[in-house]
Amino acid sequence: MSSAVLVLSGPSGAGKSTIINAAADSIGDFYFSVSTTTRTPREGEVEGKDYHFVTKEQFEEGIVNGDFLEYATVHGNYYGTSLLPVKEALEKGKLVIFDIDIQGHRLVRDALGSKVVSAFITPPTLTELEVRLKARESDSDEVISKRVSNAKIEIEALNEYDFLIVNNSIEEAKNAFISIANAARHRMSQEENKEFIKQWVSQ
Amino acid sequence: MSSAVLVLSGPSGAGKSTIINAAADSIGDFYFSVSTTTRTPREGEVEGKDYHFVTKEQFEEGIVNGDFLEYATVHGNYYGTSLLPVKEALEKGKLVIFDIDIQGHRLVRDALGSKVVSAFITPPTLTELEVRLKARESDSDEVISKRVSNAKIEIEALNEYDFLIVNNSIEEAKNAFISIANAARHRMSQEENKEFIKQWVSQ
Repeated sequence: MSSAVLVLSGPSGAGKSTIINAAADSIGDFYFSVSTTTRTPREGEVEGKDYHFVTKEQFEEGIVNGDFLEYATVHGNYYGTSLLPVKEALEKGKLVIFDIDIQGHRLVRDALGSKVVSAFITPPTLTELEVRLKARESDSDEVISKRVSNAKIEIEALNEYDFLIVNNSIEEAKNAFISIANAARHRMSQEENKEFIKQWVSQ
Repeated sequence: MSSAVLVLSGPSGAGKSTIINAAADSIGDFYFSVSTTTRTPREGEVEGKDYHFVTKEQFEEGIVNGDFLEYATVHGNYYGTSLLPVKEALEKGKLVIFDIDIQGHRLVRDALGSKVVSAFITPPTLTELEVRLKARESDSDEVISKRVSNAKIEIEALNEYDFLIVNNSIEEAKNAFISIANAARHRMSQEENKEFIKQWVSQ
């Protein structure tokens, strides 16, 4: 199977994790890219699953060493994607899945170019997003209203994405995600195309 | 289901028709765009299935009336795609499939913009293409060698396509095609995105 790069973005509460978990058995061998951050772990967050939690000094050493595929500062904390595990996964022919925001998507596109396939996942409406966030009972009213106003900004970047998944039902959204993930295996970088053409005409 | 536009290109002998037929039951409601041409029907070709065969006068009247989504001249014959049935199919939420060459792909992209998803289908090697063309026993040596040299030119346009399907086996190529066709249902035009955002934030 060909390696592939799939970026997923969408408001917190869109159901991204649920969809990825539901689809996990149907998309072949994949590597879920875990971001590195300097922010304090929230209750229930697990090192290596939700994030790699590091100190500011460790993160800045990583920046200096060129360890990050992309990184950014949000509310005074660093967030980034380590390059090495992504490179290794791609070399093994895996599908690499990124769950990152619109800024991260831009940076991954800059870094990985034409190999990237991206999908924006969203609940059907802004009101529905708010309903789902409230139903989770994990965020304060203040955090929810922050997430809702962030969502209004993020949705404006829809045109930068290859595909839109409207999460009307988990089943539908899961199937859409599986199709897009399997299609992504057939997305080639310009370098891969060049190499393919060279081999193709000579054989 | 959302409407979608899927362009398939690839050398004659790549297996495009076989793949589309094999996948037909798994890609939802679709409309296969039949091209219009002024060239003489070949033996076995069926009006309305392989092509719409028209006179030069009829074709040129169509051009004047703006009936064509795209058209071009190849070896002194007109080839084109009528706009009306494509528009009607898209309005009904169908997937419209075009089996056209690299020039047609460029023109359809010009006309339908960001809605278009495209895939290039090819046998694994140039030699294998030649073997398959010979095995069909439907073309003269001269025609086969013409197709082979055309294929060498067409493959150079690989970078213009979203996806590459290498037809190693019908089963694999069919599954790739189904994934890409279903993913295409989630590809939105810029106008659709704009409308979606407008509705999304207001609901």
